[in-house]
This record gives sequence, structure tokens and C-alpha cells, in this order.
Amino acid sequence: MFIDLNADAGESYGAFTYGHDQEIFPLVTSVNLACGFHGGSPSRMREAVALAKAHGVAVGAHPGFPDLVGFGRREMALSPEEVYADVLYQIGALHAFLRAEGLRLHHVKPHGALYLKACRDRETARAIAEAVKAFDPEVPLVVLPGTVYEEEARKAGLRVVLEAFPERAYLQNGQLAPRSLPGSWITDPEEAARRALRMVLEGKVEALDGGEVAVRAETLCIHGDNPRGPELVRAVRRALEEAGVEIRAF
Amino acid sequence: MFIDLNADAGESYGAFTYGHDQEIFPLVTSVNLACGFHGGSPSRMREAVALAKAHGVAVGAHPGFPDLVGFGRREMALSPEEVYADVLYQIGALHAFLRAEGLRLHHVKPHGALYLKACRDRETARAIAEAVKAFDPEVPLVVLPGTVYEEEARKAGLRVVLEAFPERAYLQNGQLAPRSLPGSWITDPEEAARRALRMVLEGKVEALDGGEVAVRAETLCIHGDNPRGPELVRAVRRALEEAGVEIRAF
Amino acid sequence: MFIDLNADAGESYGAFTYGHDQEIFPLVTSVNLACGFHGGSPSRMREAVALAKAHGVAVGAHPGFPDLVGFGRREMALSPEEVYADVLYQIGALHAFLRAEGLRLHHVKPHGALYLKACRDRETARAIAEAVKAFDPEVPLVVLPGTVYEEEARKAGLRVVLEAFPERAYLQNGQLAPRSLPGSWITDPEEAARRALRMVLEGKVEALDGGEVAVRAETLCIHGDNPRGPELVRAVRRALEEAGVEIRAF
Amino acid sequence: MFIDLNADAGESYGAFTYGHDQEIFPLVTSVNLACGFHGGSPSRMREAVALAKAHGVAVGAHPGFPDLVGFGRREMALSPEEVYADVLYQIGALHAFLRAEGLRLHHVKPHGALYLKACRDRETARAIAEAVKAFDPEVPLVVLPGTVYEEEARKAGLRVVLEAFPERAYLQNGQLAPRSLPGSWITDPEEAARRALRMVLEGKVEALDGGEVAVRAETLCIHGDNPRGPELVRAVRRALEEAGVEIRAF
Repeated sequence: MFIDLNADAGESYGAFTYGHDQEIFPLVTSVNLACGFHGGSPSRMREAVALAKAHGVAVGAHPGFPDLVGFGRREMALSPEEVYADVLYQIGALHAFLRAEGLRLHHVKPHGALYLKACRDRETARAIAEAVKAFDPEVPLVVLPGTVYEEEARKAGLRVVLEAFPERAYLQNGQLAPRSLPGSWITDPEEAARRALRMVLEGKVEALDGGEVAVRAETLCIHGDNPRGPELVRAVRRALEEAGVEIRAF
Repeated sequence: MFIDLNADAGESYGAFTYGHDQEIFPLVTSVNLACGFHGGSPSRMREAVALAKAHGVAVGAHPGFPDLVGFGRREMALSPEEVYADVLYQIGALHAFLRAEGLRLHHVKPHGALYLKACRDRETARAIAEAVKAFDPEVPLVVLPGTVYEEEARKAGLRVVLEAFPERAYLQNGQLAPRSLPGSWITDPEEAARRALRMVLEGKVEALDGGEVAVRAETLCIHGDNPRGPELVRAVRRALEEAGVEIRAF
Repeated sequence: MFIDLNADAGESYGAFTYGHDQEIFPLVTSVNLACGFHGGSPSRMREAVALAKAHGVAVGAHPGFPDLVGFGRREMALSPEEVYADVLYQIGALHAFLRAEGLRLHHVKPHGALYLKACRDRETARAIAEAVKAFDPEVPLVVLPGTVYEEEARKAGLRVVLEAFPERAYLQNGQLAPRSLPGSWITDPEEAARRALRMVLEGKVEALDGGEVAVRAETLCIHGDNPRGPELVRAVRRALEEAGVEIRAF
Repeated sequence: MFIDLNADAGESYGAFTYGHDQEIFPLVTSVNLACGFHGGSPSRMREAVALAKAHGVAVGAHPGFPDLVGFGRREMALSPEEVYADVLYQIGALHAFLRAEGLRLHHVKPHGALYLKACRDRETARAIAEAVKAFDPEVPLVVLPGTVYEEEARKAGLRVVLEAFPERAYLQNGQLAPRSLPGSWITDPEEAARRALRMVLEGKVEALDGGEVAVRAETLCIHGDNPRGPELVRAVRRALEEAGVEIRAF
């Protein structure tokens, strides 16, 4: 039994430091690195790639909306052609740093509002999948299971990697609970660790609206950008290791 | 006897159209495409790559300073590490569009103030050369002959392509005449064509400060972004063809 | 009987020229100048303000979404607080150039997707109105009649100026026809002129979905950024003048 | 005997937090707020203005080069016209937030590389002074004494406020020691406090290259953006207060 732990990272921009990369990289097995649009300046991307290399962490591209001031968290009405071009551009930019370090592009996972839009807007999802396919059809796409995003990634013939969120509450229908709902975000490290364990060992977790919900996961996403982020990642990692789950990149 | 004609292109940005790509691409054999920093949004870059493909024009990357509002024409005090990262980022971004179209990266040529700084600042030149080498040591770098930029490109072991400018006046010492000097810029198409011909056939041209200057060139750079740009490119091309010079990518 | 003719302008950005300001400014009585977010770099804003001063044209601020690459035409999910701050910032920036030239801020009119969002999203509309009020409660807001945007502008106690679009088709319900509908955009100058005249003289115009629709207007918006823009503005202006309508700023 | 303590602040940008505004504002008497070009997004500017109001701190504009990724610390070859327009734009943007809060613009102080360039490039200095004068000739300009920047500010007829840096080493010629020199930056809070005291009480301080140097100061600049920033500001403040120096805005 094994699982990947992924974290969004490399989001610092010039003199602006974001997140806790130094503490997070030793704890995870894959990272999704910002590519300049919502975070990640060239110099900080280079730094993040070097850090990933030093820790033997697999590196994926984390393309976002072109909205630095909004950190890619605000939905934008991009056409599918614009999504395609923006994603391709960002993948290529990150790839150059990997190539310079002799690393390969391990996966792609969209960021923030682009990820969420892909989960419910088929054209956006298709544009992302087509961009990845055009760049390299061997590169896997990390998706939220049960969404049009997963469907389009499969239709494009890409390898799909299923993701779950131990810190996020789920609804009975399998979707993530909207952030506006009380209890939608788990901040207690031990609680997140317990949920991560259930997801991996039992393939399910309690739903916010009652009962349980099936959760399929090949990778668990842990957020390291809040003050307790590193602590939470450590708790999840420890719980999995103590249960004998192997933690390794997909 | 043959020569390459190159033009800076793909500089449009979103709704902002710049230059005359549609008229220029049929006339040249290689283009240097902007990569997003001084011009060239992802969607317009994609468009420019498609146009190049349609016309069978060789595509190089044209990285510039991160100064969209200044169009990359204002020198910036970037550290060599920042130059390296910025150039690598931009090369990668353009490369993704080429890869998606089944094209290869034909060359790299820095833009505007970055090009000019490389010609006289050894550290900047070395950083550019190292970025190209890190990305792909087989990719040639277009340089101004007789500069530290040429030296550093050679030291890095890159293939070097020598460039001359039929529209720009030269000084006896082989350098380009500063734009502030009267007569530094040739705007008459027939005059530019005549100079291009001398450069290719005789390897020299009149100097602005008297006498003649040797000009070595494997590629001639023609600017298409002024109103008479396309006319000037046509005049140069016609003159070369009538003299029996083959025009083809290096 | 009189009417104002307004045009969006000052949208050039650094080396990127957009629209036909030189031809349009002599033809209109007010302009809405971009403030840097969707277009309008500081130097080009200064230039546009000087041009407006030379032609005696009233100058309003034209704040947009922070989306230069999308020219402010793509809706963005900004919070009301973000809209307030972005609008206030842009008004202030333009105001500085007016103040330096001894001019006053004549009005505010949001740009593109921000304008359209304000017409149907009450919180966005309120945020815009509050920003204008906070800056100067005497400054009028240009609105589309019959929208929540008009309502919120009135609730904030601002002077409201009603706008109509001779180039745009209307539906029977008084709304602008979506651009996706055939016939939604009038490109023939004479037809636009005829419609402008009916709007001003009769207060109505033909609806795209049949019958007529009442159109209240204190200002007519004419787009000068397409190739036939200046011609269209001239046709509208001529038709109004020949009918004895005085053209002057509101 | 009195002195002003100023700090650069409001440099956070969207989700990117920079510096320690919450800790610094209660300790200083004036702040220089970023205006969007090197830091300071509209929402964070609004937040900083509200914080300044809550603490009764005088607010100045802190315009910088248009280089967010370089935090305005990299010199750029802007023309005087570009400097004028960029400074005017930024002053206006900040002013809008002040006006909305019923505050006035207390002063202007350029940021980073723009400040340093103004100290030695007369045209840049003049452009800054002209922009301030065009906006409001009553607004003082904070300058480094003994520079062409001070000269041009005086020539423009502006009120000039002299600034000194307790954390920075000085040379015998009165200039700041270049950052590349060992010892050019004082990081020990007690040492900075001691130097601040000498500057205010004796009008001089030890020079890095031997002997003493006269230092005229109406305001002391303290950097709060390093980890020990708040501690250092507290030490300087305490030392001044204990010596009976009144700390108040100029």
C-alpha cells in the first residue's frame, strides 16, 4: 500500500516569499510548482526546482490564471483557446528549469480557480488536457475524481492521477464542500492525519452533510502555505508511516 | 553564396497588435519571437508560431527584459542570475508552442536592451549563453560580431551566428552607431537594400564616421515594426535575389 | 436638444498603440481614459490627457479589471472589496494627470467586463459607486439605464448619466443584445448614424427581436478602436448636427 | 529637539505579505507607502492606509520603478518623461485612498533604485520633483542631503525634508557606503540606536572609511522588512525617547 503526498510550492515571487518550501519539501514526495502567472518568478522557480532536486521530490507544473495580484484564486472568463495557450506557456517555462537540471516533468496540476473551473467546466478541462497532450502525451494530469475534468483528461488519452484533500471537507455527492460552509476546512493536524489515513486505508471519509463518502486517491494534497502547514504535513506523514503506508511519488 | 534574413516578430500582446507579422513572414527566412516579457502573450505567441509554420520560417526565441511597458528597450540592472533565469524561462515558454506544433527551436537572440547590454557587459552575455546551453547546447545564439557577447557565446561552446543590420549605421570600430547620432538609422528601403548587398557581397559597408568597416554576417536583421518595414524588407530581399544571393535560414 | 458623444480612449500601452485617438478626439465631446489596468500606461495616459485638453474634450476615468493581456474584457471573480480598491486606485491615477494639467475629473465609466458585470451584479455595481463616492461624490457615473448598476449609482447619491450605444443592437427588454447574436453589432456608419438620431430625437430604436425599445440617453458611446471607428463617429456626428442636435459634454 | 521616524511600508501585494506593518506602524511617525509598481496592490494599499489612520501615522507616497518582480531595486533606464509619468501615476493612486479616508498626502519619497538614481542623476531627480510639483507644490519631498536630488527638489521650489539612515554606514564624503562594502549595513539594534542618537544630538556619525561625517536629518529611515526590523525600530525609538528627543512627524 502506497500513496503520494503532494504540495503546491514554488509560489514565491521575487522579493515576496510565500509558503514554507524549505520545511515542506523534505516531507512530501511531489510538488506542484507555480509557473509565473499566479506566483513563481523565474529566479524563485529555479530555486524551487533546485530544492526539489536536492530532496529528490518529483516536480509537476502548477499553471494558474494570469492573475498575480489575485494569486490565481479568482475565476476568469478565459476562452478555451486562452486556457490552452496559457497552460502550454507555463508548462514550457517550468520545463526549461527542469531540463537545465536534468529532471523531467513529472505531472501537471492546475492551480486554484483554474483547477476548480476545470472540475465543472468541460471546455476549460478539455483545453488543459489538450495543452498537456500537445506538450507531452506521457505526462500525467492530476485530477479531482468524479468531475468533467477527470473525464476530459481520460478522453484526451492522458494518464490520470486521482487526488484527495485530507484538509478539505467532502459532501455526500463526492464533491469538495464549498469554503463558505462552516467546517469545510480542517485545520487540526491530528484530524487531517486521521482523515488522510481513512482515505488511504478505507477509501472513504465522513461527509460534512452526514454519512460517508467514497474517496479514491493516488495522491493526497496538503497545503503548506498556512502557518500550521508544515505541522499538518508532518502529522499526515507520520500517521501514514505508522500505519505502514509507503509514501512515494506516483 | 547565401544569407538568412531575420526579423523580430510575434510581439503582439493580447488585444494590442504590434508590427506587421502577416506581411513580414513571407519575406524572411527566420523570425525571433517574443516570449511574453517585452511582448508576446501566450495566445499571440501561439498564433505567431502557427504563422511561421505556415510560411516555413525558422523560429528562434527572442527573450527580453521583464519590461512590457518599456517593450524591453530600457536597460535594467539585472544580476547575471536573474538574466539566466529570465532567459531560460522565456526560451522554455516559446519552446512549448514549437513542440506542440512539431517544430524545433532554431536559435536564440536576445531582444532590445538585453541584446545591447550583452554586447558590452560580459556577465550578462555569459548568463545568456549559459541559459541557452543549459536548455540545449545545440541551439545557436545570434550575436553581434566583435563583442564580448560573441566571445562568451563561443566560450560556452555554442554555435554562434553572426548578425548584421542593413538599416543601422556602423562606426569605423565595427560597432553600431548610437541611435542619438544623426544618420544612425537608414529608413530609405533602396539605401538599406544597397547596404545589405555590400555587406553580403563585399563583407563591408560605409562607416558613419568616414571610411569603410568590415561587416561579417550570416544573417541580416530587418525591422518590420515601422510603417515602411514591409517595404524595406521587400527591397532588401529583391536586391539580394537579383544579385543571385540565395536567401535561406542558417 | 443636445447630446454628449463619448468614446473609450487612451488605451495605448507603452510601445503598443491601440485605437485611433488622434482621429477620434476632435469628433467627440467626452472620452473615457484607460487607467493602466486594461490599457493606458502612465506615459500614454499623460499623452491622452494632453490630447483631450488640446481638443477641449471632457475627461472621465475608465477603470477596468486588472487584466492587461485580456484588455479587461474577461469577467473576473473579484470581491466587492477588490472592485472598490481597484476602481479607487485607477481613478486616483488618472486624476493625477488631470490635476497636473489643471483639468477636473468629469466622470467615471467602468470598462468592458467590469461595466457589463456591474449591469447585472449588484455588489459589483455598489462597489464601483462607493469608490466614486469616496473619491468625490460630485463626480457623475455613466450607466446603462434600467440595470442594477443604475440603481446602485442612484442609491449612492451620485449623479447618474444615462448612456446608449448606436452601434449595439438592443432587445425588447431594453438590454443590449449579446454579442453572440447575429446582428448584435452595427458596423455600417450610416446605419449607426440613423440609429443614433432615432435614439436622441425619438427616444427609441428598433429591437433586434422585433418591435421597438425605449432608449434613454444623455450620452452616446461610439467605439473608435476598429478600423472604421473614426468614419462611424463622423457619420453619427454629422447626422446629429444636420438634425440640429447640439453636441456637447454632459 | 525632535525627529521623525519613517519606514517603508504597505509593500504587500495581494496574497504576498511583505514586511511587518502591524508591528512597525505603532513605532514610527511617518510611513512611505508603496503605490503598486514595486509592491502595494490596491487592496493592500487600502489596508495600509487604514492602519496608518488607526495609528495616527503620517502617510507619504513611495513611488518606485515599474518592476514588481525586482521589488523596484534594480535600476532602469527610464527617460525623464517616463519617470515623471510613473511618479505622477503612483502619487495619484495612493492619494485616492488617502482622500477616501479623509487624510492628506504628507510627503513623497521615491523607493529603492529610483531613490538611489535620483541621488546621482540630475534628470531623474528633476523629473521626480516636477511630478510632485505638478500634483501639489505643497507636498514635501524626502531627500538624501548633499545630492543632486536635494538640489533639484529645492530648485523646483518644493519643501525638502532631509533624511538619514541609522542602519546604513556612511563614507567621509557624506554618501551612503555601497552595500557591497563590508560593514555597510548595521544589523545590531543597539548599534543602530546609538548611531541614531549621535545623528540627532550631534549631527554626525562615524564614517566607514575613518573619521566622522556630518549628518543632517529631519527624519530617520528605519527598515522594518527584515526579521529584526521591528526590534531595531524599537531600540532606536527607545534610545531617542530616553534622551528626551521628541518623536513626531515633520
